[in-house]
Amino acid sequence: LIGVIGGGQLGRMLGLAGIALGHEFRFLEPSPHPPAAAVGDVVAIEYDDPTAVDAFVEGCEVVTYEFENVPVDAARRIATRVPVWPPPAALAAAQDRLTEKELFRRAGVPTPQFVPVDSSDELASALSAIGDAVVKTRREGYDGKGQTTAARDDDADPIWNRLGEVPLLVEERVPFERELSLLAVRGRDGATTFYPLVENVHRDGILRVSYAPAGGASSGLQVDAERYGKALLDELAYVGVLAIEFFQRNGGLLANEIAPRVHNSGHWTIDGAICSQFENHLRAVLGLPLGPASTIGDSVMVNFIGSVPDLRALLQVPRAHVHLYSKAARPGRKLGHVTLVDADTSAVETVLALAGAGSFLPRAPGTWS
Amino acid sequence: LIGVIGGGQLGRMLGLAGIALGHEFRFLEPSPHPPAAAVGDVVAIEYDDPTAVDAFVEGCEVVTYEFENVPVDAARRIATRVPVWPPPAALAAAQDRLTEKELFRRAGVPTPQFVPVDSSDELASALSAIGDAVVKTRREGYDGKGQTTAARDDDADPIWNRLGEVPLLVEERVPFERELSLLAVRGRDGATTFYPLVENVHRDGILRVSYAPAGGASSGLQVDAERYGKALLDELAYVGVLAIEFFQRNGGLLANEIAPRVHNSGHWTIDGAICSQFENHLRAVLGLPLGPASTIGDSVMVNFIGSVPDLRALLQVPRAHVHLYSKAARPGRKLGHVTLVDADTSAVETVLALAGAGSFLPRAPGTWS
Repeated sequence: LIGVIGGGQLGRMLGLAGIALGHEFRFLEPSPHPPAAAVGDVVAIEYDDPTAVDAFVEGCEVVTYEFENVPVDAARRIATRVPVWPPPAALAAAQDRLTEKELFRRAGVPTPQFVPVDSSDELASALSAIGDAVVKTRREGYDGKGQTTAARDDDADPIWNRLGEVPLLVEERVPFERELSLLAVRGRDGATTFYPLVENVHRDGILRVSYAPAGGASSGLQVDAERYGKALLDELAYVGVLAIEFFQRNGGLLANEIAPRVHNSGHWTIDGAICSQFENHLRAVLGLPLGPASTIGDSVMVNFIGSVPDLRALLQVPRAHVHLYSKAARPGRKLGHVTLVDADTSAVETVLALAGAGSFLPRAPGTWS
Repeated sequence: LIGVIGGGQLGRMLGLAGIALGHEFRFLEPSPHPPAAAVGDVVAIEYDDPTAVDAFVEGCEVVTYEFENVPVDAARRIATRVPVWPPPAALAAAQDRLTEKELFRRAGVPTPQFVPVDSSDELASALSAIGDAVVKTRREGYDGKGQTTAARDDDADPIWNRLGEVPLLVEERVPFERELSLLAVRGRDGATTFYPLVENVHRDGILRVSYAPAGGASSGLQVDAERYGKALLDELAYVGVLAIEFFQRNGGLLANEIAPRVHNSGHWTIDGAICSQFENHLRAVLGLPLGPASTIGDSVMVNFIGSVPDLRALLQVPRAHVHLYSKAARPGRKLGHVTLVDADTSAVETVLALAGAGSFLPRAPGTWS
């Protein structure tokens, strides 16, 4: 029995991978019919209620999580009862943009310039020092929420107010060429493996399309990414899948953020890699040997945001693998995705159009055809 | 909601494929914790209880089955309430070895000589006419049960007694070179697709190893198999996956039996084909376009019979995909399987040895290396 904190689509896909390996799942999730309900029991608890936590961990051989806003204290308490992987310290690092950036520095991973600020005055100074900036809340930002852009001479007060008068990080606004991500995996024995760099295209702060491997990524870029990935994995004594988002600038990599879990930019691995990120995450946390992270073909993953395209039309595309999450449609919500493996340009264009992502062509066209 | 009669490992793997497509499952299964319980609700009913049948079909958009010993009358009654695919007529044909053989004749599919017998005297005559024979009960045989070999001069009485004094079929005992199987799929719209022929190696009447595609199968053999498959699909107005077992003799095919469901010899398709037999069965019964049945690599599937090999050792084999069914170990029981895709000879030998199937090398060695 594997306990998973969170019961969204990531939990659902972990469950699908783990059932094949003979495991059962229990999900800690407040909503009554989450996507993961199809693949295990769902329990809703208060993290502060020791009896309820007891009931959750009872019988679990390991506990993991599928979202990063798990209270670190709760994860640490659970870890006194049953192994919790990835380590709660990785949660702590990822939940605060300042500790995250400090982790990058400590591990020798290049990252954009940053200045932490705790007041409107400090924000004004930071903007004047950094110039074009992205101002982010230190905590609880995701999918583009809790952040805004700002320029050197912008008035700090309204920004400070708008972001909630909470601790912020002012980051250099990097004129990056594209966003790449790396999925890094580390086993309990310290063995590591890395999926190829993926190019991600966002709209409105939400991932729309991932191209795997990233077109035109030199082997040197992959080597750099893996070196950074290994430094972060080892620094955190990590176990499981770690997602690392990079900006590519002048052909080099700048780490933007990490997610201590399986990641949307790795969904293509279900159909396009020998061993999926979900299976490898489970292999890692269970102390089993890691599986091959190599591709079985070039893949394009397209998210369904807010609505699901006509299934009949999608499945007519020969190498389209469709994944739906059984979530109610709502604007901006991730409802499913499709992965095309070794598809030709016209298949990719058909799927992008069906998914309402027609203009999200890759920055390096031709690399996926 | 998809209703499935039966809740074994085939139901479990149907569920894993169908959840990815956004479906929920209900399984009709008497045992309380069957393999399919991981992927849906399990209900146990008496087929003769109309209220219980009502409860099973309530809310189902389609009903299918994962074993062939479903009472045909029950399937027909359910079909008055909700679409049932494959058609109950296919169940009827497959449940009786005589109607099955007559179906082959009607569809123009070569099959070994056969004589139905209903008494010890008729059995004696049949043996004397046919010579070396396999004597099978007409109904309820599977995995080598309910059958025995016999020779021209054998005494009919003890055979008649041993097989339970029930209607039998006496079949010519074919000195076949090997057993091949074809998975044929037909959609609601009559579209068909076929997986490549697979070579199957049995021991004690239980499938141990499948090689996909079958080594050394000429393209002519595949063409013949597909022609026979299409004839059977169309004759039955079939919808779903139909498994057809053939003997290969003198380079030609003789149909041995059919199974109107997904089949153990198609488990390799989860990892080794673009669209698995499970997804294609669901696409068919749901009226969706069929997916590609082509391979992504040469595959070897090895069943775990009676015990499960050490998982750590198995997962160290680079392209091993392990599937466990969460069943209690028992001699002769199928507990899981592993599929190797594009593996080298030494990986195949390692896995065969781990699975206790070391001597089950293919009849055409080298074809899977």
